[in-house]
Amino acid sequence: MKLKHIISARQFDRKILEKIFALTNQIKAGKYKNDALYGKIMATLFYEPSTRTRFSFESAMQRLGGRVISTENAGEFSSAAKGETLEDTIRVVNSYCDVIVLRHPKTGASEIASQYSQVPIINAGDGEGEHPTQAILDIYTIFSKFNKKTFTVAMVGDLKYGRTVHSLSCLLALYPNVKIVFISPKALSLPKSVLDHLRKKHVDFVGTEDFRSYLSVVDILYQTRIQKERFGDIREYRKYYGKFIIDKKVLSFLKKTAVIMHPLPRVNEITPEVDLDPRAIYFEQAQNGIFSRMALLLLLFDKAKL
Amino acid sequence: MKLKHIISARQFDRKILEKIFALTNQIKAGKYKNDALYGKIMATLFYEPSTRTRFSFESAMQRLGGRVISTENAGEFSSAAKGETLEDTIRVVNSYCDVIVLRHPKTGASEIASQYSQVPIINAGDGEGEHPTQAILDIYTIFSKFNKKTFTVAMVGDLKYGRTVHSLSCLLALYPNVKIVFISPKALSLPKSVLDHLRKKHVDFVGTEDFRSYLSVVDILYQTRIQKERFGDIREYRKYYGKFIIDKKVLSFLKKTAVIMHPLPRVNEITPEVDLDPRAIYFEQAQNGIFSRMALLLLLFDKAKL
Amino acid sequence: MKLKHIISARQFDRKILEKIFALTNQIKAGKYKNDALYGKIMATLFYEPSTRTRFSFESAMQRLGGRVISTENAGEFSSAAKGETLEDTIRVVNSYCDVIVLRHPKTGASEIASQYSQVPIINAGDGEGEHPTQAILDIYTIFSKFNKKTFTVAMVGDLKYGRTVHSLSCLLALYPNVKIVFISPKALSLPKSVLDHLRKKHVDFVGTEDFRSYLSVVDILYQTRIQKERFGDIREYRKYYGKFIIDKKVLSFLKKTAVIMHPLPRVNEITPEVDLDPRAIYFEQAQNGIFSRMALLLLLFDKAKL
Repeated sequence: MKLKHIISARQFDRKILEKIFALTNQIKAGKYKNDALYGKIMATLFYEPSTRTRFSFESAMQRLGGRVISTENAGEFSSAAKGETLEDTIRVVNSYCDVIVLRHPKTGASEIASQYSQVPIINAGDGEGEHPTQAILDIYTIFSKFNKKTFTVAMVGDLKYGRTVHSLSCLLALYPNVKIVFISPKALSLPKSVLDHLRKKHVDFVGTEDFRSYLSVVDILYQTRIQKERFGDIREYRKYYGKFIIDKKVLSFLKKTAVIMHPLPRVNEITPEVDLDPRAIYFEQAQNGIFSRMALLLLLFDKAKL
Repeated sequence: MKLKHIISARQFDRKILEKIFALTNQIKAGKYKNDALYGKIMATLFYEPSTRTRFSFESAMQRLGGRVISTENAGEFSSAAKGETLEDTIRVVNSYCDVIVLRHPKTGASEIASQYSQVPIINAGDGEGEHPTQAILDIYTIFSKFNKKTFTVAMVGDLKYGRTVHSLSCLLALYPNVKIVFISPKALSLPKSVLDHLRKKHVDFVGTEDFRSYLSVVDILYQTRIQKERFGDIREYRKYYGKFIIDKKVLSFLKKTAVIMHPLPRVNEITPEVDLDPRAIYFEQAQNGIFSRMALLLLLFDKAKL
Repeated sequence: MKLKHIISARQFDRKILEKIFALTNQIKAGKYKNDALYGKIMATLFYEPSTRTRFSFESAMQRLGGRVISTENAGEFSSAAKGETLEDTIRVVNSYCDVIVLRHPKTGASEIASQYSQVPIINAGDGEGEHPTQAILDIYTIFSKFNKKTFTVAMVGDLKYGRTVHSLSCLLALYPNVKIVFISPKALSLPKSVLDHLRKKHVDFVGTEDFRSYLSVVDILYQTRIQKERFGDIREYRKYYGKFIIDKKVLSFLKKTAVIMHPLPRVNEITPEVDLDPRAIYFEQAQNGIFSRMALLLLLFDKAKL
């Protein structure tokens, strides 16, 4: 099994996900050769700075023996600065490396890049589009906690612009016994394209503004940041701000077996007191990003023993 | 044969160029040990961001097993920020690494750096001065297409500020059967110092504003970007803008055996339709940058088997 | 002997310093295995750009076979940009690497980071606080010149904000036969917390504004930059500016056996003519930074053979 590019969560099926999970488990258990990608070079081409995501990819590559060329200022030398198109940039950079990790402010940028690149493109976030490797680490984290694949996920916060939510929803849609509750202000509810996809896949989901009512039934509480700047009317923002905060009181409503996840960074939407609760697994989730990205790299380079 | 520093195209003669070409050919054919520079460290010290050039050097170094310490914000910690001289910066950084790749806005900066450095300095562009490693990859690309070394090169666009043109002209001047046509607006014609050098070397060249007339006789059409901002009078710019565009129509005038080159990035001076023509070799040219820079690094570290 | 974190110069005693010196000497003599840290990853997390210090750490790590993930723009993705706390950043980044080198504008930041990190934190400068690895390289340089540990050090310039002076003073305080002369304008004299520490340790020191009088008795003249911007009144600045310059005339007052040090970068407080004097050892001092940081890394990873 070989992946060519990683552009969208929609390109994955259950079979390949199961292989990724198995491989990630092996890596997490220390069963991998740490020079599998010796001699390979990753270019991290970030048009928006995101040290967190970049570090995660670069660490994964180097833990496999690969090497890295890196920029978090790609915007300064390309179209923005001298008028070069993304297509040209990709056609040059792809001759300097063996895989390109692309973060770009425009939705669809990775799809375009993949049409021009002779090496694999990994979408590390394209505008309000997708963030498929985040979704892979998220669903891996979920299944590492819930073996039977029958559970209810609540996704909370900014579901409109949150590309991690878009990507994760598409992966969850592959599993028939998963129920999803989308909790957000109406102004920040899921975009139509994702809704249409979930309906087409017959996903059992509901959208609501009511945070409290579902707390006692969810198995996974997936929190995201509500971005103040998205609201035209600050009073509208204040109506929701505070309703969606996960604090000690919210913990008291949650199942003992539930888990709390967050793609991070968080600001105030999960209070620090929650960190100490064993149900808070967002830092473990971040750590899984290394292991699952190592698995994806091994698959892209056809180095996975599965 | 050992190079000490790479500062100017003028330091090369035909004998060393032939060795570089032979070595680059070997590398391109995969015949090199990819840990020849194991344990060596390259510092890329860029006072102007140029991800493209930086990536090319860092990839070349790492493909040879070397390692990299890197900055594209050198200006922020040196003279500009705290008042340190380039001399001092070099005397400190040269104790952290085994080779320094320097990009600097001031003409002559690499020459100065080489006087203070105990490790090799590679000039990766100094203001309006030179860009010798670009010239090496350019002339390697030309000779990989034209074996007999008898041909006509047209260099088009901004010949005044274009340091790649200055450096490439000096290398071409080493070959007696090469003719050069310099095509540019008068305001952007070759600087006197380069003209004098070519005359001293008895190069057969002509300068003109007439783009069309020479199209049918040139073997290499070397296009560069005309920079709008160089013109005081925008009407002057508009007079030339459009005259020097390589498009499908221009292709129809070119020899079947001609090639089109460009140091990149390009903006609009070569239209995208040209990319599909087999005579368009600018992306192959960019790729040759890796191989020829690997060759130069092997020579600097006296690791070339020639 | 294993270090856990490197936060403050005050955490070191003479016994561990002696081991660091011995190890640094071994490394300087080329007696180390250059893959001792193979498979380990260093994250350099710089909230203020400092290419010099970052390069020094990254070179040290790579000379030991380790790898690096690096940012000099950490401020752009953390609290400053999206409102994330340093605590959260550390808890995420520590799962991507094996050691974190932190440069932060806030005094005490490394101490806080060490409380949340599961991997070692190295303080690479925290505001006006400390810069312990600079102090280690400084004192190593001093003892490499003065074997008997009985000498007089003059520290000159901005002693108030200069964190290298604070850290070095604390290390010198461990040696009973060291005398210190603090020479600065009153407005830039040593902060009370450092003074109190020196008094508690019974250090033989004096503070003065008189530069000339002590020149003939000092063994080490440790110069630092006087920062114009610290003075409210420019006339106050001009009173001292010029008094503390080390130039050819100052050289004539110094002992033949004295040495001149500077943490660098320097601006005008040491004139270039001084560089040629054999007593000027500031570039050798900078070079020692690589060796002593390699020693510290080996100790942190428990890889030192002592």
